[in-house]
Amino acid sequence: MGLDETTQKPHDRLSSYLAGDMERVNGLIRTRMASEHAPRIPEVTAHLVEAGGKRLRPMLTLAAARMCGYGGDHHIRLAATVEFIHTATLLHDDVVDASAQRRGRPTANLLWDNKSSVLVGDYLFSRSFQLMVETGSLRVLDILSNASATIAEGEVLQLSAAQDLRTDEATYLKVVRGKTAALFSAATEVGGVIAGAAEDQVRALFTYGDALGIAFQIVDDLLDYGGSSATIGKNTGDDFRERKLTLPVIKAVAAASPEEMAFWRRVIEKGDQRDGDLDHAMQILNHHGSMTAARDEAIGWAVKAKSALSFLPAHELRDMLADLADFVVTRIR
Amino acid sequence: MGLDETTQKPHDRLSSYLAGDMERVNGLIRTRMASEHAPRIPEVTAHLVEAGGKRLRPMLTLAAARMCGYGGDHHIRLAATVEFIHTATLLHDDVVDASAQRRGRPTANLLWDNKSSVLVGDYLFSRSFQLMVETGSLRVLDILSNASATIAEGEVLQLSAAQDLRTDEATYLKVVRGKTAALFSAATEVGGVIAGAAEDQVRALFTYGDALGIAFQIVDDLLDYGGSSATIGKNTGDDFRERKLTLPVIKAVAAASPEEMAFWRRVIEKGDQRDGDLDHAMQILNHHGSMTAARDEAIGWAVKAKSALSFLPAHELRDMLADLADFVVTRIR
Repeated sequence: MGLDETTQKPHDRLSSYLAGDMERVNGLIRTRMASEHAPRIPEVTAHLVEAGGKRLRPMLTLAAARMCGYGGDHHIRLAATVEFIHTATLLHDDVVDASAQRRGRPTANLLWDNKSSVLVGDYLFSRSFQLMVETGSLRVLDILSNASATIAEGEVLQLSAAQDLRTDEATYLKVVRGKTAALFSAATEVGGVIAGAAEDQVRALFTYGDALGIAFQIVDDLLDYGGSSATIGKNTGDDFRERKLTLPVIKAVAAASPEEMAFWRRVIEKGDQRDGDLDHAMQILNHHGSMTAARDEAIGWAVKAKSALSFLPAHELRDMLADLADFVVTRIR
Repeated sequence: MGLDETTQKPHDRLSSYLAGDMERVNGLIRTRMASEHAPRIPEVTAHLVEAGGKRLRPMLTLAAARMCGYGGDHHIRLAATVEFIHTATLLHDDVVDASAQRRGRPTANLLWDNKSSVLVGDYLFSRSFQLMVETGSLRVLDILSNASATIAEGEVLQLSAAQDLRTDEATYLKVVRGKTAALFSAATEVGGVIAGAAEDQVRALFTYGDALGIAFQIVDDLLDYGGSSATIGKNTGDDFRERKLTLPVIKAVAAASPEEMAFWRRVIEKGDQRDGDLDHAMQILNHHGSMTAARDEAIGWAVKAKSALSFLPAHELRDMLADLADFVVTRIR
């Protein structure tokens, strides 16, 4: 997921505003990543946690807590928690995705990485768990344990939905919540909860994170098919090659002619992909207006995210979060 | 880990005594394993959770809670929690061990299983986390989050200690705690905590679980080299082939002559194993008294487990737990 190009400005403003908090989060992450007994752990995690991460999720937690007037320091723990969970899922995704990309022919080296990815992911997950227990808030634990279950369930669902042309938009939404939105919404919600915000504010924070995450993921999926004609995504065609049922494809399949259906069966179900197929898929997606329709949905979710913020107190951070929602969909406008 | 042969009697008595509770635990496990959105999950877990599992860990939790006079029903949740964590680690071990056994040449099928193992393991772990949150006890959450971290760390440590002849007994103990004893001790400790037992009883329950787990694992490792002359373990040679540094080998390496050291370097470090090497290894282990010394340690831990029980109230279940500690080491006497 690449936010760099499009959300740079609001993201950078968040970064500057939250710099002091983020430094403490980074310090905590470094401390808790360390393992006296197993020095390999920081090696494996360093490049993920330390290098170049945009830290969007922990910033959401910090912003939510600050915006609600929080003055304690549990938001630092929760921000680190959220980043650990995110990193753990990335590590486990490596195992799942790597094997998909190199079907049946992995290297010994890849397998070694698999082992470390699985176990270090587990380690980070358990570390995140320890951190949230330290906040002493059962409600926070409830939110994050539910988010963890949604994430795990979404990942399994994605596995069985892949290559299945019967996948519908409701299933897509569940996958997207698991993949992205559940951690976004938990990140913002726990920020409000730890700050002791009013119930309608906590709900609004949840809605903001959920809608932002969904918009974010739909945009990502659109960019995989080139986005709008003006913007070319950097990983065009990855989802197509991995035969994933993303929103534009689901819409196109629902409206497919018999010839188009035969095409989708061949390239997605059977995985028999030839030169020119990606171009042909993109033509179908544009012909049916599937790209435009998916784009409109992404914009709708971004609007929903922004609207939710109206329940929250006026605050510089609130404006930045509103701009962030706009920025997420700029890539496809 | 095979308990069948040796602990049948105390284990069966525990099973009978706790049958009512265990039925509720099984019901809860079935309910929480189900996933509306991802029907593959119960498929993958069913054979692990449903079929033939001896349910030792959940029984430890139930026994500890009952022995301390608990009359509520959170012990059911905690027993299911413990079994979920155990199953999740088994699923992830599959990924780690399978790739070790078929170095560099896995099948596509194996990889498909890897994906499911990783993701369903994550799902079970997050489910276990939800269950423990439902108990509303921060102390229970603290114990189980720490146990999870110890387990994950131990697994990573085992990965880096494998094939490393410098592995010492202290490292071995950390690996064993991660692999077995941390969940045993958490299982017994949370049983006492949820029952509101006195501090010295909670400590005793921790010590019992910890010592029982260590004894159990040392016995398992001994059986891998044939145990005593009278008892032949069912998986003789697995650890040798996987070049694991277990207690008898660590002891033999510490006492090795230059010729023996060359042998260990070849078979463990380099992995160059030939016909007759396992027999030769067993000869060295017996020659140095490494088997006897490791056996004595296992018995020492079993004795420690039993002694800890003296802090607990006289109870039928206490007697069964004492017998269980004896039984664990019967396989190698």
